[in-house]
Amino acid sequence: MTGPQTAPDPSRRNEQSRAAILTAAAELVAELGFGKLTIEKIAARAGVGKQTIYRWWPSKGAVVFDAFLAASENPSGSLTLPDTGDLGEDLRTVLRLTALELADPAFDRTGRALTAEVLTDPALLRDYRERLLDPLLTVTRERLRTAREAGQLRADADLDLAVELLYGPLYYRWLHGLGPLDPGYADQVVAAVLGALGPTRD
Amino acid sequence: MTGPQTAPDPSRRNEQSRAAILTAAAELVAELGFGKLTIEKIAARAGVGKQTIYRWWPSKGAVVFDAFLAASENPSGSLTLPDTGDLGEDLRTVLRLTALELADPAFDRTGRALTAEVLTDPALLRDYRERLLDPLLTVTRERLRTAREAGQLRADADLDLAVELLYGPLYYRWLHGLGPLDPGYADQVVAAVLGALGPTRD
Repeated sequence: MTGPQTAPDPSRRNEQSRAAILTAAAELVAELGFGKLTIEKIAARAGVGKQTIYRWWPSKGAVVFDAFLAASENPSGSLTLPDTGDLGEDLRTVLRLTALELADPAFDRTGRALTAEVLTDPALLRDYRERLLDPLLTVTRERLRTAREAGQLRADADLDLAVELLYGPLYYRWLHGLGPLDPGYADQVVAAVLGALGPTRD
Repeated sequence: MTGPQTAPDPSRRNEQSRAAILTAAAELVAELGFGKLTIEKIAARAGVGKQTIYRWWPSKGAVVFDAFLAASENPSGSLTLPDTGDLGEDLRTVLRLTALELADPAFDRTGRALTAEVLTDPALLRDYRERLLDPLLTVTRERLRTAREAGQLRADADLDLAVELLYGPLYYRWLHGLGPLDPGYADQVVAAVLGALGPTRD
């Protein structure tokens, strides 16, 4: 009935609970779909109380988005894009990582379940845009803006179009299972975008 | 208790039943989502018997895909792409139509409900690929092949990449609500693809 002689470090325990919750949420959204997922089920799988989850997240959607971020290549949530000065190299790095991530079966399951919900729930789409998509598109646009200022893109290159030309084809291929998502494909997409929006040669 | 003096033309009655079924299916998939849709509900809304539906379609998915085709710009199901000899003009025609269709609120509702199901049901994705997507991508590739042979695209242009560069950005913008789907955007995407894969100028 007495606790362990050395009380566990509370910040370490919080970190472990948080990790268990995010893992449980990622697993359950893939198994059940977003619709059937509940905070109760996440709490049960993670071995924590419901109140622990509500202390850190306002909603089921918020937990799932954090689970998604945690499972992604960039768990810190502080997105940055490499800037080596060579736009092609930096975009190939990012799109190769994106392709790898989409091709990962674990990510694929969770990603499809979440995308399906986002497509049919406008409130969830807003959440997804704010927490995941817009930050990614913003840092990508910023990297492209720097390149445009350095003369590596045409002065009139439309940066909204540019980010959709970069991510759209990968996403389209992934969702429909049209072909391999490998480094070679990522490089092809980058070459096409640079060919389309890079400086004219005449 | 006697029928009308002039019996209705059975082929005309079939055509009316078919149209009523497809309309009911399109409405119901938008209202209920694919998961809760049943053949019974489609029959009730269309005012026909269940057996009438099963006589023409093997499954719920098959009805919904036909409803989707019927609601689209090209209800005949016999897809072709214009070939005026000017690749840019032909692609602008197709992408402008695609953009208009995606921007249509009625199409948007059905399209999102169907896409969500297709993403999470591998059997339905196969059906969707076979009946809708692959035919579209095939005729698009064929038009691009003709253009490549006419020297309007680079000899080494990858046609799989080309179709994904054309449709991927529109689809990405549509699904995430990133911006307007208008003729100007369609033209921008076509210009980018021609810039990327058109003949080199040096």
